[in-house]
Amino acid sequence: MKPEELDQLCVNTIRTLSMDAVEKAKSGHPGAPMGMAPIGYTLFTKVLKHNPKNPAFPDRDRFVLSAGHASMLLYSVLYLTGYDISLDDIKNFRQWGSRTPGHPEFGHTPGVETTTGPLGQGFANAVGLAMAERFLAMRYNRPGHPVVDHHTFVLAGDGCMMEGISSEAASLAGHLGLSKLICLYDDNQVTIEGSTDITFTENVGARFEAYGWQVVKVADGTDLSALAAAIDEAKEDKDRPTLIMVRTAIACGSPNKQGSSEAHGAPLGEKEICLTKENLGWPKEPAFLVPEEALAHCREQVEKGLRAEAEWDKRMQAYRTAHPAAAAELVQVLSGNLPEGWDKTIPAFTPDQPAVATRAASGKVLNALAATLPTLMGGSADLAPSNNTLIKGEGDFDKMHYGNRNIRFGVREHAMGAILSGMALHGGVHPYGGTFLVFADYMRPAIRMAALMGLPVVYVFTHDSVAVGEDGPTHQPIEHVMCLRAIPGLTVIRPADAAETAEAWRQAMINREGPTALILSRQNLPILDRKIYAPAVNLGRGGYVLADSEKEPDIILIATGSEVPLALAAREELAKEGVGCRVVSMPSFELFKKTPKAYQDQVLPPAVTKRLSVEAGITMGWERYTGAGGASIGIDRFGASAPGNVVLAKLGFTKENVVETARKLLS
Amino acid sequence: MKPEELDQLCVNTIRTLSMDAVEKAKSGHPGAPMGMAPIGYTLFTKVLKHNPKNPAFPDRDRFVLSAGHASMLLYSVLYLTGYDISLDDIKNFRQWGSRTPGHPEFGHTPGVETTTGPLGQGFANAVGLAMAERFLAMRYNRPGHPVVDHHTFVLAGDGCMMEGISSEAASLAGHLGLSKLICLYDDNQVTIEGSTDITFTENVGARFEAYGWQVVKVADGTDLSALAAAIDEAKEDKDRPTLIMVRTAIACGSPNKQGSSEAHGAPLGEKEICLTKENLGWPKEPAFLVPEEALAHCREQVEKGLRAEAEWDKRMQAYRTAHPAAAAELVQVLSGNLPEGWDKTIPAFTPDQPAVATRAASGKVLNALAATLPTLMGGSADLAPSNNTLIKGEGDFDKMHYGNRNIRFGVREHAMGAILSGMALHGGVHPYGGTFLVFADYMRPAIRMAALMGLPVVYVFTHDSVAVGEDGPTHQPIEHVMCLRAIPGLTVIRPADAAETAEAWRQAMINREGPTALILSRQNLPILDRKIYAPAVNLGRGGYVLADSEKEPDIILIATGSEVPLALAAREELAKEGVGCRVVSMPSFELFKKTPKAYQDQVLPPAVTKRLSVEAGITMGWERYTGAGGASIGIDRFGASAPGNVVLAKLGFTKENVVETARKLLS
Repeated sequence: MKPEELDQLCVNTIRTLSMDAVEKAKSGHPGAPMGMAPIGYTLFTKVLKHNPKNPAFPDRDRFVLSAGHASMLLYSVLYLTGYDISLDDIKNFRQWGSRTPGHPEFGHTPGVETTTGPLGQGFANAVGLAMAERFLAMRYNRPGHPVVDHHTFVLAGDGCMMEGISSEAASLAGHLGLSKLICLYDDNQVTIEGSTDITFTENVGARFEAYGWQVVKVADGTDLSALAAAIDEAKEDKDRPTLIMVRTAIACGSPNKQGSSEAHGAPLGEKEICLTKENLGWPKEPAFLVPEEALAHCREQVEKGLRAEAEWDKRMQAYRTAHPAAAAELVQVLSGNLPEGWDKTIPAFTPDQPAVATRAASGKVLNALAATLPTLMGGSADLAPSNNTLIKGEGDFDKMHYGNRNIRFGVREHAMGAILSGMALHGGVHPYGGTFLVFADYMRPAIRMAALMGLPVVYVFTHDSVAVGEDGPTHQPIEHVMCLRAIPGLTVIRPADAAETAEAWRQAMINREGPTALILSRQNLPILDRKIYAPAVNLGRGGYVLADSEKEPDIILIATGSEVPLALAAREELAKEGVGCRVVSMPSFELFKKTPKAYQDQVLPPAVTKRLSVEAGITMGWERYTGAGGASIGIDRFGASAPGNVVLAKLGFTKENVVETARKLLS
Repeated sequence: MKPEELDQLCVNTIRTLSMDAVEKAKSGHPGAPMGMAPIGYTLFTKVLKHNPKNPAFPDRDRFVLSAGHASMLLYSVLYLTGYDISLDDIKNFRQWGSRTPGHPEFGHTPGVETTTGPLGQGFANAVGLAMAERFLAMRYNRPGHPVVDHHTFVLAGDGCMMEGISSEAASLAGHLGLSKLICLYDDNQVTIEGSTDITFTENVGARFEAYGWQVVKVADGTDLSALAAAIDEAKEDKDRPTLIMVRTAIACGSPNKQGSSEAHGAPLGEKEICLTKENLGWPKEPAFLVPEEALAHCREQVEKGLRAEAEWDKRMQAYRTAHPAAAAELVQVLSGNLPEGWDKTIPAFTPDQPAVATRAASGKVLNALAATLPTLMGGSADLAPSNNTLIKGEGDFDKMHYGNRNIRFGVREHAMGAILSGMALHGGVHPYGGTFLVFADYMRPAIRMAALMGLPVVYVFTHDSVAVGEDGPTHQPIEHVMCLRAIPGLTVIRPADAAETAEAWRQAMINREGPTALILSRQNLPILDRKIYAPAVNLGRGGYVLADSEKEPDIILIATGSEVPLALAAREELAKEGVGCRVVSMPSFELFKKTPKAYQDQVLPPAVTKRLSVEAGITMGWERYTGAGGASIGIDRFGASAPGNVVLAKLGFTKENVVETARKLLS
């Protein structure tokens, strides 16, 4: 068989596997995999440095299918090139428990680098992957020892290009000159509602040039040599990321559905599949036919991959010999584990120190951790001075200084969220990112994806209540803390003082199984005297008895963050009246839920039904802890512009109101 | 005084009022108002068609301050040109109850067209304002009768330009050729973290040209004639929206802080204010000095405004005479009220009809309403066929057909959200927009703004649970319904069948005080037999007894949406065992909360503490209704890719599990 024929056979294998799998599942997206089959084939067999037998090979090229609905493209090439996916897995496309879910899922399917589906997310993940690569390369490579040296490829469709998150991420990637980032754009001119003519007539290429990207066009997306040449051109540009605009046809090969939006999200149908196979010169039976030559050819990647990793192992050996300290550190950071003694620098906060905002305490802890964690890196969406996210003495991560750890994300919260995930996915770095809590909404889809993937990312959300004050309701979070708690897999921690803030960071770093959101105050808060109150290390249990009554409590005040001092003040007042009042600091619902029931009952004894929560946010969700006999002091309306203490007082966050509400509850 | 001197005096009045107000409030953003003072002055005194004595003048030009932190610019010009804002209001900047909150608030301050602050939102609102103008103009103007004919101006900063929402909105505006939309870009090269060099080096002008915009540059933002000329140029282009890039200096006039990010978000300080006033040739005392000539000159807008509206009144009279029917309809739609008989077309759904997805029923109701509401318009973020948001027989709203009502938003959820708000802000139209529920997260900041502003927008969120099925966890909402309920002012309705869907639309349209989110199923649901069960019209009360036990109930099952039939089935099963089981349909927490306590206690008698909620979403928040003795069947994890019925069954949404859980609760 001529090489060109073999190529075509492989490409058509991808096409037919994709349409057969969608047909069998009775749902899915056949059009995109059929149109992009030549791209997938070219990347996985001719371009990518990868090792199908070790998807975790550290120096592999990264591939992100941002157009996640084209999952069958990815599963097909993963199967064909020898990843641990069987033909049976493909036959089980979209079934309960299968390795081949509707959209690619990181951690679930070998070879899937990130979970995609929500459009634009993968594109921004790819920017994060490319940033982490540049950082580690600059930090650890030595002359003659390029141990970190790989590309990031991302395949994006029209939907990805329309989403704002991609615009943000592309602008930043252009600014940073991420030349090893290569985006292949499936420019098929079709979306779900029809031709892109109906809403998307901008000049995408010119837009990306404006961002500082190289733009290369491939007029015929079935032309394998043109695709390879374009990728070469992309690699040759050492200053800019590259967008390769590939003109493709959705459902390429289907006589009646090629080029039609009908082929986007529904099976082609048995009849059209027959016609397509006929058109491709493919046997109609059996379904899921994989020609031996095609499989054998693609499986050459196995051998190639083992060689690639062996070569890298050799490079690492030479590097280890020449630069043992750097090599040891690189191995350590790539392990994903925290190094010994990582937390020894965390400062102690004592009550003799002046009151301090938890955002400021967070900045101190972050800087302390930066000293022991060489790849702790991140930044803010243009609010670094407010979020206290800068690592002091460290420069900006920019195209002249990829080894620096302060990232200037710009006013691009959404991209920041997905970039942090990309960095975590890459491995080797501990990423964090900050903004005002109210703007967590801007990055919420990216937070959800991080939670779904279980990525160790830290979000630094400051200005956490109406105490923001004068900036008013647009800047005052109300529902945000509770709505972050609502995301499965996200750990939310709202510390009450500087000491709890230190513990919050400790928990955030210890948590390797998912993202953590730190909820921090704008305003100063007293550092609690832990000789009087229970120690802050209890934060690890999510909720704890901070101050107790001498006898069995008559009432429990449950508070978080800046409302804890208020609860303590109310407790003192109530004590004067002979009321036994316990104060529970509840910085994290999620951590508390993880403790044994017996501990929870100790903190919140079922017998004590008079319970009052105090949190400057919505009350919904608090019933879980206050129970039927309880009440909540919260805010179920928007805030208002005025000095923070005025707003708090107007909305009931005064000692008097807490005491009064407690009295009513007791009466 | 020479005209140029008078101009300068007015500009400096804006600058000094802004810095004095920020100083007095001890918080705020002086830099932007000082840099943009010439723009604000030019617009409000030389460009805008507006009537300070009637901010609701229907044919006024719209002005949006997308860079909402520059609120003092807006308050200054509103005060100076004669809106109902006093100098005392300005002295009360950022104080509780004042008319001059930290960021402009629609409905709170006369002359404020939209609430801004979260960056990029105002820009996208402006696109919506411009779209509504084009729609109404095309629909109602007649040759010689241009009764709808105004421009939309938006002032945006670097932050707005970086946010993805603006990219989405700009791309759509360019596609639509909204030539009466003019954006002035405060290109001051400074953001909070410092020079835009550190992260934002893209070519903004080239980017907007790629979107199909005209781009005009003003090299010196203090050059009033250049500003005026640029605006003229913008107005002359009849095919494209225009971006005017105005090179300004933040804190213009301040000897030490001009051009510095320090001047962004903090008072200049007493000393620098003195130096600035000296530099501007301004008396140091008193603060809040308004020269009489400046005030008198700006107040000429009052007379001019009254004339402008009188001219329009005359045009309307002529129009009324020539086109009485069209005029009557225009007056009706501009009133914002629903016309008589608007709901007479809403179809009845009866149990003899086959099971139907509530998204499909919604499409039918929407189409019925489109017949009686001539300005009901909207679309979907590229999911129209799935969201059932198309108005049949109606064409697309595009630059050749501004009178059409189907909007193709593209895969731009976030811009869609803010555009819908802009359309509602304009008035005259009833906007709606659809996407998958899971992608409500992408538009969440815009939804929040609509709720904060109390805008009558309808969101059509379909594919409302894990029943989405094969698309998997990225496409399966879990926390979304509850997190929408968490937004103050948003009404969330999840109907149980087609009949409740019709009522949900009725409630959405009746609600003129805020946005409504309809939560609709992908899968078919039986139409409940209302001869057996309580009528769907009860949906207006948020929750109601759908099916009761003969005696006092032993247990209450509370369900929403697609889980209602499940609860009914469980009830029958439990009845066989002699369990008195009531089923409450609870389509809307918000509507239920509005009913009298007595009604609520009738539906959920306090004495009946065995309560079980059944909803395919997170359980957090349900405790409010299930109480201490209750339980919840919900989903506190991410979903999975498999056929919808399989996922539902695996996660406990079976009759057996509901019955079993009820039994446990009763035992």
